[in-house]
Amino acid sequence: MTKVLLIEKGERGEVMKKERRIGYLGPAGTFTGLAVHALFPDEEMTNLHSFPSIEECLLAAHQRKTDVTVVPIENSIGGSVSMTLDWLIHEVEVPIQAEVRLPVHHELLAHPAQVGQRDFEIVYAHPQALKQCDQYLRTHHPDIEQRPMNSSAEAAWLVANNPDKAWLSISNFIAKEIYQLKAIQSNIENNGMNTTRFIALGYEKLDLVAEFQKSSMIVSFPENELMTLYQVLGVIDKYDIKPTKIESAPMKTELGHYVFFIDLDTTGKREAYQLLCQDIRNLGCGLRQLGTYPTLEANLAYRGVGEL
Amino acid sequence: MTKVLLIEKGERGEVMKKERRIGYLGPAGTFTGLAVHALFPDEEMTNLHSFPSIEECLLAAHQRKTDVTVVPIENSIGGSVSMTLDWLIHEVEVPIQAEVRLPVHHELLAHPAQVGQRDFEIVYAHPQALKQCDQYLRTHHPDIEQRPMNSSAEAAWLVANNPDKAWLSISNFIAKEIYQLKAIQSNIENNGMNTTRFIALGYEKLDLVAEFQKSSMIVSFPENELMTLYQVLGVIDKYDIKPTKIESAPMKTELGHYVFFIDLDTTGKREAYQLLCQDIRNLGCGLRQLGTYPTLEANLAYRGVGEL
Repeated sequence: MTKVLLIEKGERGEVMKKERRIGYLGPAGTFTGLAVHALFPDEEMTNLHSFPSIEECLLAAHQRKTDVTVVPIENSIGGSVSMTLDWLIHEVEVPIQAEVRLPVHHELLAHPAQVGQRDFEIVYAHPQALKQCDQYLRTHHPDIEQRPMNSSAEAAWLVANNPDKAWLSISNFIAKEIYQLKAIQSNIENNGMNTTRFIALGYEKLDLVAEFQKSSMIVSFPENELMTLYQVLGVIDKYDIKPTKIESAPMKTELGHYVFFIDLDTTGKREAYQLLCQDIRNLGCGLRQLGTYPTLEANLAYRGVGEL
Repeated sequence: MTKVLLIEKGERGEVMKKERRIGYLGPAGTFTGLAVHALFPDEEMTNLHSFPSIEECLLAAHQRKTDVTVVPIENSIGGSVSMTLDWLIHEVEVPIQAEVRLPVHHELLAHPAQVGQRDFEIVYAHPQALKQCDQYLRTHHPDIEQRPMNSSAEAAWLVANNPDKAWLSISNFIAKEIYQLKAIQSNIENNGMNTTRFIALGYEKLDLVAEFQKSSMIVSFPENELMTLYQVLGVIDKYDIKPTKIESAPMKTELGHYVFFIDLDTTGKREAYQLLCQDIRNLGCGLRQLGTYPTLEANLAYRGVGEL
């Protein structure tokens, strides 16, 4: 199997090596795989478990089949990954132990045999990648058929295995190396600030050092009265804590009933955060704490390909 | 072409017939097609234009290729239709002229030749339908392969055209009739309150009569300071207006910058709503009004199939 070597340029992930089962949204070559490298740069990657869907990732975490599991939760262009939010709210109860933010650069890839092609027929990509690159596609390939795939890596695999087809994939630089494709164009995302947030879930704390801490909570309102959000924000304001995300999600009972997923910057505010939680409960709200955890800014650059 | 006749059981849609170009998310047999019937029950459906995607629907509305265009915006289980919100926020500026809420019941359909089949291999459905029926699928077809389709109607079409395949679709009762499939099980959605909201967009007012009125707005915050939402809700509270939805969406510039999509119940509050908008602008917020419009509760029952 090909091993891709990476050097990280941003904040460091965990420094200790452990024999630990790490689950992630695969296959090899996904952006989530990059997030694993960013979080655990020194880890021997011998116990990696890739899962084909976010549901299966979160189920493995919930059932303790993995010790830590990494999934995407939000992209700066595509917005929240609704499957992740949905499962955190309704299906599993696994705490968040870390967050890592990674720049996401997309490459338009072709099989080496198709590089001179002038009339590409299909572009395969993850739906989020299609969304994040829609301006480029509209301008340069307005008539190309866009086919959604479960992952950017699968899209690359498909193109690699069909050298006679006028197909393209939108994938990252790692998938390009793993599947030995050629870049028709690099950095085709709508804007250069394109970033994805990933979370690491599990029942054990991670030994990560980071400047900032976040806390996540899920809040529901008495009588499903949406205006209670006003009071909840009042409580947060009282403790001088800044929200970094306020997202509504369906309660799934009936239209107009919502829960809110709220992320807060709780750096140096551990005690205030606990008081705040109590105040929110005192409003009659349902509240579930999803964890207080370090948040890392990372970056990865390609260093070469070796044999595992 | 087969014509499906419907009787509506809820609030009535527009009573006047007009030669009007109606666009909707097709093909024939989609839930959005049902929403068109609910909004325009007396209309001669001779000028219907179905589009294969929400983007194309909204682009047609924007470019005045249609007079009114109907797209889904939210489901009680699946949540917001992010493509609709995304395009309303970032791509087009067409006012909302009506909302209609329709109960959504899903049927598990097979080709008549496959009804006795015990080992179905694939179920085709819209991703939202898969989400809305995931409990049934997990219980009754845990190992079936789920394949996402662009619409419930396309899924039915595919099953209808492959009588020798052990395939299923999740579609509605109209698609069942149009594509002459058999129901293996009716009402397989996670809960019976499953409802979808559709909006009708266009530059002309519609002659609709409804008890309630809604207003929709898109708000952005000075310096992208998320806590401004607290002040915005304070203003809404001051005018004693109830929000019915508060949804964040990515600004698409960088992670952590959001706009908010807010729906308000402005029944009998036309003047207060305008003052409220001014107050929100006075906070330094960006504000775009998406329209004040009647909101209808509808229901449809199958009456028979005729020839068009």
